[in-house]
Amino acid sequence: MDIETQALVAYAPDSNLKADWRLEQVKLLLSPKQHELKVRMVATGICHSDLVAASTPPIPEWGMTFPKVFGHEGAAIVEEVGPDVTVANIGDPILLSYSYCDDCSLCKIGQQPYCLRWAQMNMSSGQGYFETHDGQHASGMFLGQSSFAGTSIVNENSVVNVKHLLQSDDDLMLLAPLGCGLMTGSGAVINGAGGQPHDIVLVTGLGAVGLGAIMAAKIVGCEEIIAVDRVAHRLETARELGATKVLDSTKVRGNLSEDIRNLVQGRRISIIIETTGAAQVIQECVQALGKHGRFIQLGAPPLNFEIKLPLHAFFSANQSFECHFLGNTTGQEWVPVMIKWWREGKFPIEKLVKYFPARKALQAIHEMETGTAIKPVLVW
Amino acid sequence: MDIETQALVAYAPDSNLKADWRLEQVKLLLSPKQHELKVRMVATGICHSDLVAASTPPIPEWGMTFPKVFGHEGAAIVEEVGPDVTVANIGDPILLSYSYCDDCSLCKIGQQPYCLRWAQMNMSSGQGYFETHDGQHASGMFLGQSSFAGTSIVNENSVVNVKHLLQSDDDLMLLAPLGCGLMTGSGAVINGAGGQPHDIVLVTGLGAVGLGAIMAAKIVGCEEIIAVDRVAHRLETARELGATKVLDSTKVRGNLSEDIRNLVQGRRISIIIETTGAAQVIQECVQALGKHGRFIQLGAPPLNFEIKLPLHAFFSANQSFECHFLGNTTGQEWVPVMIKWWREGKFPIEKLVKYFPARKALQAIHEMETGTAIKPVLVW
Repeated sequence: MDIETQALVAYAPDSNLKADWRLEQVKLLLSPKQHELKVRMVATGICHSDLVAASTPPIPEWGMTFPKVFGHEGAAIVEEVGPDVTVANIGDPILLSYSYCDDCSLCKIGQQPYCLRWAQMNMSSGQGYFETHDGQHASGMFLGQSSFAGTSIVNENSVVNVKHLLQSDDDLMLLAPLGCGLMTGSGAVINGAGGQPHDIVLVTGLGAVGLGAIMAAKIVGCEEIIAVDRVAHRLETARELGATKVLDSTKVRGNLSEDIRNLVQGRRISIIIETTGAAQVIQECVQALGKHGRFIQLGAPPLNFEIKLPLHAFFSANQSFECHFLGNTTGQEWVPVMIKWWREGKFPIEKLVKYFPARKALQAIHEMETGTAIKPVLVW
Repeated sequence: MDIETQALVAYAPDSNLKADWRLEQVKLLLSPKQHELKVRMVATGICHSDLVAASTPPIPEWGMTFPKVFGHEGAAIVEEVGPDVTVANIGDPILLSYSYCDDCSLCKIGQQPYCLRWAQMNMSSGQGYFETHDGQHASGMFLGQSSFAGTSIVNENSVVNVKHLLQSDDDLMLLAPLGCGLMTGSGAVINGAGGQPHDIVLVTGLGAVGLGAIMAAKIVGCEEIIAVDRVAHRLETARELGATKVLDSTKVRGNLSEDIRNLVQGRRISIIIETTGAAQVIQECVQALGKHGRFIQLGAPPLNFEIKLPLHAFFSANQSFECHFLGNTTGQEWVPVMIKWWREGKFPIEKLVKYFPARKALQAIHEMETGTAIKPVLVW
């Protein structure tokens, strides 16, 4: 039986690549198949990559067709389980993260963020899940969940059962955004870069990914945590969350890397966590990296950008440039870690979250784009 | 009392950067100071970086002045110990590796190859150690040892005491080259890249570093080990040592990376160990790297080379470009590991070594330059 539900549907962007978001009633066409669950969404964090994906032209060979239901930081209650589901039962509260095949050679060695079927599992497997109000098919299963919908079908490998980790219904709503940006940033510092107290960490870009990195660096006890952004209130938040030094990039007159090096008086920056994906920021900040430093790229760079590394200097300083995904971990492994930190007061995500009723989704997106809201969470 | 000894002295290269090696009698001017030892050299491996250093213009700010006694793969017997030396006693057989301060923030966290005083400890601290036959001062202490000399003063942190690891005098001679190239290559695969049986490893350049990497990959049991070089007999040696596929780069008509990918039929190359330092090889081989692959640069690249990474593709494939030194280990830690492998028949360095009496040092260098000898070892 088809189910009517509210959803934030992305239609194909226009010729200027402006996204076309529409909040409307849709039909959920399918029932959960093997290893799938039907869930009632409680809340969904909006992640920058939802906005990027919605303003990217269709890429049919990756299964990126429009209309599509995005959303990949969902918090939900299980309503129905398909065959062979073992992760949760009806009524369980769950958080949602990315999906993976659990069967390829990379999944088998614990490298699920690099699953060889990642695109298939997260981008292209959701044909036929929804029907828009005017009868078009809209694809689902985005990152195994398509959580910009009041009701959705999700993949079992996206599910983190948090039944034993919650103390109230409000917890579930607040914790919605744990499955992507905050995991990516905090995991990059700890699992990716192996951050230690002796490290001087630079974080560029203070969305949820960057602020997740800052909270993790503070938890590790890193010697210095430098935060760079162009939005003043984000720099302030970074300070509250643990940044020991902040730099407003709109005030840089010369070279960004020089100002950064001055901030630490030439001491060795050992880890750079780059979350903006902006070509100029990447190219300039590489020069701020210290001896034996690791530059960890988390923000997706522009399509045609070639980074240039002066290789002799890079080699002589024994540096690395590394592209990491999703905190080098899974939701199943990392969400419980973050919830524990949060209970201990070390991961105060309430300082990042701003709630919007789902009907105000377009406003939430607007506030994210302008930088007013760091982590908008839609409440269904 | 000054000691007369035979040494291979490098004078400043000519305007075409041709090295000026001269085998001559020199005086050793000093006695061992604190943490130094005077040693009688038994044998010294010639490493490619000796040749590079001897054909580099003087860099006085790095202490790279001429004349200089190079050599950094020494095997020796201790003749005299300076104050506070604890690593060895008179008469002990030792192998020599690079030096480090053991006191900076990187040494203290076990990152000695990246010692913050590396240049000072290994390049510039040897003023006043030797006097050439015509009365010029020649610097010593190159990589803490300057082992192109029959007698030399060495730094304690370069010393690996092998008294309990040898079974005969011949062992010491054969094991001379363990302290640099073979350690760099084998350590990069195991300590640097964390090689595992599921890895497909590509090694470019089959000197001691590259062949050390191949032996280590075979010890790990890597799924495929691909060797690339332009010298046929080196490719043959690589096969004997464990390469499962070899590629003669002189026979590539189109793009090197394409031929490499064809060799593994598109399977994922997870580790590239690049030892040539050649700009074109580096730039082409980056394209052969598979998803979530690590490109490990071990060969020093040319001074003005900028590598270009198409960052969106590099990011989407979650790849890394990393510059590693010296196998991410110390001689004290890794030389005993390699000796154990050698005894078990898994690290047959006798297949790489060609002995030359020290008086034929110039011929040894020539054979290394032409590729005839993989690892020439001078016997003093």
